[in-house]
Amino acid sequence: MSEPDPGLLSLNTATVRALWKLPDIIAGCARHDIRGIAPWRDQVAATGLKETAQRIRDAGLTVTGLCRGGMFPAADRDGRRAARDDNRRAVDEALALGAKCLVLVVGGLPKDRDGRIASKNLSDAREMVRDGIGELLEQARPAGMPLAIEPLHPMYAADRACINTLAHANAMCDELAPDGRDGLGVAVDVYHVWWDPDLKAGIERAGAANRLFAYHICDWLVPTTDLLNDRGMMGDGVIDLPLIRSWMEAAGYRGMHEVEIFSSANWWKRDPDSVLATCRARHRDCT
Amino acid sequence: MSEPDPGLLSLNTATVRALWKLPDIIAGCARHDIRGIAPWRDQVAATGLKETAQRIRDAGLTVTGLCRGGMFPAADRDGRRAARDDNRRAVDEALALGAKCLVLVVGGLPKDRDGRIASKNLSDAREMVRDGIGELLEQARPAGMPLAIEPLHPMYAADRACINTLAHANAMCDELAPDGRDGLGVAVDVYHVWWDPDLKAGIERAGAANRLFAYHICDWLVPTTDLLNDRGMMGDGVIDLPLIRSWMEAAGYRGMHEVEIFSSANWWKRDPDSVLATCRARHRDCT
Repeated sequence: MSEPDPGLLSLNTATVRALWKLPDIIAGCARHDIRGIAPWRDQVAATGLKETAQRIRDAGLTVTGLCRGGMFPAADRDGRRAARDDNRRAVDEALALGAKCLVLVVGGLPKDRDGRIASKNLSDAREMVRDGIGELLEQARPAGMPLAIEPLHPMYAADRACINTLAHANAMCDELAPDGRDGLGVAVDVYHVWWDPDLKAGIERAGAANRLFAYHICDWLVPTTDLLNDRGMMGDGVIDLPLIRSWMEAAGYRGMHEVEIFSSANWWKRDPDSVLATCRARHRDCT
Repeated sequence: MSEPDPGLLSLNTATVRALWKLPDIIAGCARHDIRGIAPWRDQVAATGLKETAQRIRDAGLTVTGLCRGGMFPAADRDGRRAARDDNRRAVDEALALGAKCLVLVVGGLPKDRDGRIASKNLSDAREMVRDGIGELLEQARPAGMPLAIEPLHPMYAADRACINTLAHANAMCDELAPDGRDGLGVAVDVYHVWWDPDLKAGIERAGAANRLFAYHICDWLVPTTDLLNDRGMMGDGVIDLPLIRSWMEAAGYRGMHEVEIFSSANWWKRDPDSVLATCRARHRDCT
């Protein structure tokens, strides 16, 4: 397999946000010749949408995705309406930033206003997700903002996302907007899908439908000590990253490789400059 | 949905083994009118195979499964041979106990002799699993010991089992022994498969092929604080247990409902008699 193009490295800001604010991260990307960025909405809000957009433009960065929209299921109509309104704002923000896509973490079982899970009906939750994405598409498609469904690892099915395989994400796209050029696609994050025996087939199917909108990388550690915040740096875990990249490329993906590492006990505690240098080196050597 | 038959409650000994030895557990089952048991091999060895078999017979318990065989992948031929030999002994022990099946936790990526993962090749690991099960079937089938592949949650793909969906387990059975009467089937554990949008279809397919050999219950907690040992008691989590039981029954499953709870911070610390009383009550009210 060929080496990855170093110009395709992108940084999801979660990787270093524990110690740096968004303007620091943008400047850090420039210092480390990282050409892409994927910021989180709360950081964008803290810096200001216009200022963030300006800083990112000035740094010449590609916004590989805005994190995040989604969280569609809710226990009552008011909750679902609040999610809808928030998602509309997310689309507007993604447009202002010139993002390649708005990443959708679709939500798990419906929660009540206090954030407690209010139902065990996973099938209902999946219908709320489908309806929510369908409605959001009506705004996002004419505005020209692609929506990227990110299947999350099955260990997040209850509380974060009830779309847990690429096959399921593909099926939902088939139903709502069969061609990615109609504005609905997928974000493939190796952490969530690496285990899937149907991963190659799912990537091929997504590529054939022009819906490979984003590619996120990190690694799966053994042992993993926390369900949320113990992701590994590329090369420190067990995911065959060059193999999965080869599948993405064979399926036509030409976009960037976005490093997204939640790591409260390790990488989030390190000097962010050294983290970015490590991302740069590991992208070259291990992906 | 109808209430579950209380006579179908079975106990996987992992649920109370932190405080009780196997003879205590067998006696506890009798006290709580629990009619089935699924012991672990190390406990059986500690008590002695003959004595265990005698005690279980005397208590009139059905052995819903022996835990466990599997762990087929290894980095070299010696490792795979050691796994094969150990699995053969497991079949013999299951026969001596009159178990309904030998549960197979198939193993993840190949490990070396020091227990370290030696390869990232998941596809190879899955071939080793298929070959290992195929070879074990040659012994188990004529001896009359059914082998039950247990798909494990995808979060265990690297280190415990690289068969992570019922669809994958079904496909492997189709390849090796298409009818369950030929001695190969599946163990459906709700903890591992509850999230799967194809679960109902997978249960139907397994039922049609006569390969539903075991049904394990517990619950998925939100939040889950540990990948291994934070399973919930039925009713304390988010799994729609009556729904999944209804799918099992509709697919023809008439076997027992085996409670298997790994819970180092909670249930393993409680008085085992109160745990068994809770299992009994929750089986009635929440499954």
